[in-house]
Amino acid sequence: MQIAIVLFDRFTALDAVGPYEILSRAPGAETVFVAERTGPVRNDSGSLALVADRTLADVPAPDVVIVPGGPGQSAQMENETLLGWLRAADATSTWTTSVCTGSLLLAAAGLLKGRRATSHWLALDLIKTFGAEPTGERVVIEGKYVTAAGVSSGIDMGLTLLGRIAGDEHAQAVQLLTEYDPRPPYDAGSPEKAPAALVEEFRAKSRFILR
Amino acid sequence: MQIAIVLFDRFTALDAVGPYEILSRAPGAETVFVAERTGPVRNDSGSLALVADRTLADVPAPDVVIVPGGPGQSAQMENETLLGWLRAADATSTWTTSVCTGSLLLAAAGLLKGRRATSHWLALDLIKTFGAEPTGERVVIEGKYVTAAGVSSGIDMGLTLLGRIAGDEHAQAVQLLTEYDPRPPYDAGSPEKAPAALVEEFRAKSRFILR
Repeated sequence: MQIAIVLFDRFTALDAVGPYEILSRAPGAETVFVAERTGPVRNDSGSLALVADRTLADVPAPDVVIVPGGPGQSAQMENETLLGWLRAADATSTWTTSVCTGSLLLAAAGLLKGRRATSHWLALDLIKTFGAEPTGERVVIEGKYVTAAGVSSGIDMGLTLLGRIAGDEHAQAVQLLTEYDPRPPYDAGSPEKAPAALVEEFRAKSRFILR
Repeated sequence: MQIAIVLFDRFTALDAVGPYEILSRAPGAETVFVAERTGPVRNDSGSLALVADRTLADVPAPDVVIVPGGPGQSAQMENETLLGWLRAADATSTWTTSVCTGSLLLAAAGLLKGRRATSHWLALDLIKTFGAEPTGERVVIEGKYVTAAGVSSGIDMGLTLLGRIAGDEHAQAVQLLTEYDPRPPYDAGSPEKAPAALVEEFRAKSRFILR
């Protein structure tokens, strides 16, 4: 099973590495980081680069496609090299997935039309404009399309998908090995739970946050 | 505030990227990935490389030190270049931290003697042999020494530490932005919660898992 994780300038690192750490532990998985060009790809803050080992063209038909989000997503929304690759890869994939605003790229490629999907909570309105049906769920499975909410939700998506791919027991083994027994010291991880003032502040400047 | 995240061959990616994604969002943070040599450093499975932008020598006195774990930790336990750097950096750091078996490196450097600390659940016995006092807590704060349990626990550590560094409100803002409202689809993330047979199986082969 080949898993392709797409990188682009100014992606968010945890969007990619969260599901990577879980799904790359599927039996027989070959996981490959891909981008338009091979070599280091810088994240949103510029302080971390992950290496793309293969080009998009090198990996035309992965079994699983994972598209992270991040502020750099907006610059890719009309990048036909990437969008065309997503469409072609999706034609033969078993699972087509995204984390955070990565779902906007799937949507821009036309893959989420009429489908339930999610994204970063600040991008739920935007994804609707591409014909997707946004939900407030953390992980949305719609046929072979699996979308996750913001950043850290990719870990939950990875584990959910690993259960489907490799069975509950294997997924539990990976949960134990990665000690995924989360204990956030605060309870502010969703717009429903966070202080209202904070939510409003982010909504007011969302156009800057998402770019 | 300078944050140094240490890389070495066969580290575990999420150990490093979890706390990175949270702590790099502290106000005024300059986060830098360091290793003995600059350039790509491959993780445990070999399918992902993160770029070390600076050498250890380039970054002698960071305010925050973060040491990830991973099977590659065992090959570093007598690496005096790294251990010496850890001791020197610790002499002036505000926080000296680790995720997963990274605490074994802090312990090997002599920094956890007589201190409460944690590690990956399979390494708790081992850390005792270096004079640390292992606990089953997910994040242990002992003065300026902060150790986290396995892999994914670095996110909880990052958020806990961000609260201490930047205040509760900023930490909550970062929790909301990274949508850290975890919903694991299974409840097997600790040896207390996972199926007993799975725990025993891992214990039986722990020497292979940790190397």
